[in-house]
Amino acid sequence: MPTPNGHKVSILLELLGLEYEFQHLNFAKSEQKEPWFLELNPNGRIPTLVDSSTNTTLSETAAIMQYLVDTYDKENKFSYKVGTPLYYKQLEVLYFQMAGVGPMQGQMGHFKFFAPETIPYGIERYENETKRLYSVVEEYLKRNKENGPYLVGNHLCIADIAIFTWASKLHRAKIDINSWPLVAQWFENIASLPEVQLGLTKPMLST
Amino acid sequence: MPTPNGHKVSILLELLGLEYEFQHLNFAKSEQKEPWFLELNPNGRIPTLVDSSTNTTLSETAAIMQYLVDTYDKENKFSYKVGTPLYYKQLEVLYFQMAGVGPMQGQMGHFKFFAPETIPYGIERYENETKRLYSVVEEYLKRNKENGPYLVGNHLCIADIAIFTWASKLHRAKIDINSWPLVAQWFENIASLPEVQLGLTKPMLST
Repeated sequence: MPTPNGHKVSILLELLGLEYEFQHLNFAKSEQKEPWFLELNPNGRIPTLVDSSTNTTLSETAAIMQYLVDTYDKENKFSYKVGTPLYYKQLEVLYFQMAGVGPMQGQMGHFKFFAPETIPYGIERYENETKRLYSVVEEYLKRNKENGPYLVGNHLCIADIAIFTWASKLHRAKIDINSWPLVAQWFENIASLPEVQLGLTKPMLST
Repeated sequence: MPTPNGHKVSILLELLGLEYEFQHLNFAKSEQKEPWFLELNPNGRIPTLVDSSTNTTLSETAAIMQYLVDTYDKENKFSYKVGTPLYYKQLEVLYFQMAGVGPMQGQMGHFKFFAPETIPYGIERYENETKRLYSVVEEYLKRNKENGPYLVGNHLCIADIAIFTWASKLHRAKIDINSWPLVAQWFENIASLPEVQLGLTKPMLST
């Protein structure tokens, strides 16, 4: 599905130049809760990667991204070498995205767009927390500014991609990314990459 | 603070037999938002590890746990060797905890105990999701049952510890862990370890 989590993986697959097929799951039909998919991922959430070349089945986007760079990014173009200080910083930011930005921005979307009743407390709580978290992203970029316009070190890595796909949905919630100047500039840099643009078109909504 | 996230790290430090000092932060006084702490962790959340022996400062509990086992668990007593299939399964479950169990059980706690107004929709939403997530934990245990009473492979690992500390708070929300028989048994096994019991006593509330 064309969600921030689906796009993290498609963008990385495009950047790595890997061949892949994606299978669209229709959430309206709860296809992600069908037995064949739960067999692959007991949590019933997307995406799940099946890599036939290594006989690997893996869920949770950041785990998938880590697996892909460990396996197919031996030159560390989009990652940092396992065990180095920059690797642990990348890991910190990945967990920050997975435990903070994703769940909180996700709950904001729920209360703003999907909840069957309007609950101002829920909308305000998660909008405030989402904004606070992007101010933390701004601070990460500020602290790393002398190395480059990235969250970690001197090049794009999976931690940038993980937050980028969530940042790409801010406008839908009418949150102005320009509230955070470094985030806005970082976003434009990443959005300008052809592989990123291609990754954002697949998965797309089924017609 | 004696929270599930604080305890993940103290339990692992006890299991690894490492010497450490912990500094209590008073949330009532928002000490986790004071400049000296934000310098260590821009997100202003606990815990943060400072390892003077490697000059490492790191936040996000699962990143801290991964760092600790990479650095101090060379025999993989509480982890699986980086790059192996069991390592990626451990990583999947860690992210499942960090992106699912933690945030959702945390939101349940907020709406049940801390929100200034009673919002039935919020209570129900996060209680249902928390229960669903523990049914996924049950399924992980079921799928790994032939290897042992662990989430991954044939011994305790950081993924077990990460979920254990959250499971230890279920009773406070009046959720009966016995709803999931394998989870209940797995929980008792881990809770019986002396190092785990010691880890749960520090950090403790300051007196």
